[in-house]
Amino acid sequence: MSVRSNILAMSGYVPGEQLNDADIVKLNTNENPYPPSPMVFHAIREALTGDKLRKYPQPMGDHFRKAAGQVLGVDPDGILIGNGSDDLLTILTRTFVPEGGLIASPTPSYILYRNLAEIQGSRFETVRFDESWKLPSPWPIRGANLTFLPNPNSPSGTALTPAELERFMAEVAGPVVCDEAYGDFCDWNGLLLAKSSPNVIVTRSLSKSYSLAGIRFGFAVAQPQVVRQMLKVKDSYNCDVLSLAAATAAIEDQDYFRSVKAKIVATRGRMEVELSRLGFTVTPSTANFVWCRRSDRPLKPIAEELKARKILVRYMNYDGYDGLRISVGSDAEIDKLLAALAAIL
Amino acid sequence: MSVRSNILAMSGYVPGEQLNDADIVKLNTNENPYPPSPMVFHAIREALTGDKLRKYPQPMGDHFRKAAGQVLGVDPDGILIGNGSDDLLTILTRTFVPEGGLIASPTPSYILYRNLAEIQGSRFETVRFDESWKLPSPWPIRGANLTFLPNPNSPSGTALTPAELERFMAEVAGPVVCDEAYGDFCDWNGLLLAKSSPNVIVTRSLSKSYSLAGIRFGFAVAQPQVVRQMLKVKDSYNCDVLSLAAATAAIEDQDYFRSVKAKIVATRGRMEVELSRLGFTVTPSTANFVWCRRSDRPLKPIAEELKARKILVRYMNYDGYDGLRISVGSDAEIDKLLAALAAIL
Repeated sequence: MSVRSNILAMSGYVPGEQLNDADIVKLNTNENPYPPSPMVFHAIREALTGDKLRKYPQPMGDHFRKAAGQVLGVDPDGILIGNGSDDLLTILTRTFVPEGGLIASPTPSYILYRNLAEIQGSRFETVRFDESWKLPSPWPIRGANLTFLPNPNSPSGTALTPAELERFMAEVAGPVVCDEAYGDFCDWNGLLLAKSSPNVIVTRSLSKSYSLAGIRFGFAVAQPQVVRQMLKVKDSYNCDVLSLAAATAAIEDQDYFRSVKAKIVATRGRMEVELSRLGFTVTPSTANFVWCRRSDRPLKPIAEELKARKILVRYMNYDGYDGLRISVGSDAEIDKLLAALAAIL
Repeated sequence: MSVRSNILAMSGYVPGEQLNDADIVKLNTNENPYPPSPMVFHAIREALTGDKLRKYPQPMGDHFRKAAGQVLGVDPDGILIGNGSDDLLTILTRTFVPEGGLIASPTPSYILYRNLAEIQGSRFETVRFDESWKLPSPWPIRGANLTFLPNPNSPSGTALTPAELERFMAEVAGPVVCDEAYGDFCDWNGLLLAKSSPNVIVTRSLSKSYSLAGIRFGFAVAQPQVVRQMLKVKDSYNCDVLSLAAATAAIEDQDYFRSVKAKIVATRGRMEVELSRLGFTVTPSTANFVWCRRSDRPLKPIAEELKARKILVRYMNYDGYDGLRISVGSDAEIDKLLAALAAIL
């Protein structure tokens, strides 16, 4: 077995726990507490008729691209479909970053970026967010082959403003992935920047905002010339007929999406207030989770005590800087969380 | 846009045409003419209940691994799930092959292998099959980081025998992917070799034998120590809840699989006889397609005339060595093919 040294050396990404007992309150992986649109179920059942299962799917997902293009106001040729947005982050890494190249990213941020660099055999450099989750200007890393900018960021839930985004892109002066996995919960995005510059690629996920974590679907928005290069790297049939049907139906039902988003934003506001009352320092969020810290007692035991009460939150530790990342659940779930926290504290 | 030079230089894999008009006889991409097991539809509908769509799937596909392990007699820890077997070929490339490394393969064979090398930025060397689709012994390429051996091979439909397989693995003396995308149609395989050597990895697809091209599912069988390395490279959630449910139901229904296989093998035999009568030289096949050649007239126009009659077959040309690769369809589809060929010739 002659595995590459960079692979042997790496430990691998560890996803959040997927305990799916019905009585567990699962607030650790930012799933949506509400079901997907009824149109999604209808579209999947429809896709089970005829001979779609036994035939290969559309390689490019043309129906989805047309629907998403209309909703977002972008050229369908500027959209690339992916098996979850992680698939697109992998495709982008392989398109832009040679072995021994350089990937840059702010930190604390999405842990997968480092893994993508390790798999590609490239270097990985990070720049710390400041205390208010802003980035230094000018951005200090020169010559990265690819820069990942999560916006909104995880675990903080914060987002650079449109003006800050634009300045960041100008300062990097190279390819930037604006990772908008949580972008649907924020009131602005990088789509205009992706339209106007070949150096900006926006990635989106349907896992959180469209309640479709189970079907694995994401997409990238970039200039068509960039999509044509990424297309060479993607698997021919990276999305299946059922997930394509589900994703298309989901993005077409914008009324449903807006109603779910409104509920999540309302609950998020309530979480920020109540968790602050319980003594946490809560970072104002533009995503579907909140980042909570406190200095009067260690945070990891709190997560463990919550787990003992069948409530999962994500304890995260970035070289000693730690906190709890708590997904926005349904109001009933958040009631349970708050009651448990009150009992623990 | 600073795309890697190897990506800019490559042209990208072009999948077979996916025309899905109901009246087209589609014999160009080796799909199964029969529907998947009724249990597959049942399992997908079942997966639509509860909250499975909105939650992340099992990262490792434990139910599938257990079911496949029982059917194949292998350790579930020696199975890795993939979003189609192409996903596994990509994972294997990234696990074993550095940029500038070497991938080897027989030729004519699966065209994707060259693309995988191009994407990885590695070299690609091929060895020609001889006229009877056997390989030279000793295998002449030394020190490849990864060798792809499709068995059965496409476009020929031929397979090395178990003894030839074992000798090949010994001669390569490095990591070999025994690509068994068509392995279910053959009466032997490389599973025992994968169990006994860390240098042998078998890949399988459910697209053809289990009629599930639309849902994208494949898996690899290797020693658990090899799977642990590959796991670092795969996306955390590379298979979705619906495809996992479908794949598990499909592989559990071995009675159905055997009945479909028997029909395909019977039709394949008939195609070999009838196409020979029409003047083609037909290579005896161990897969779900046949490879047809003739020297009395050019083959490409035959494919084009068939297409004009709404019958798709795959014309393939490997540096001047060309032929028609025709999928085994239903008997009614093959009747139409044979009638059209009789009219054209």
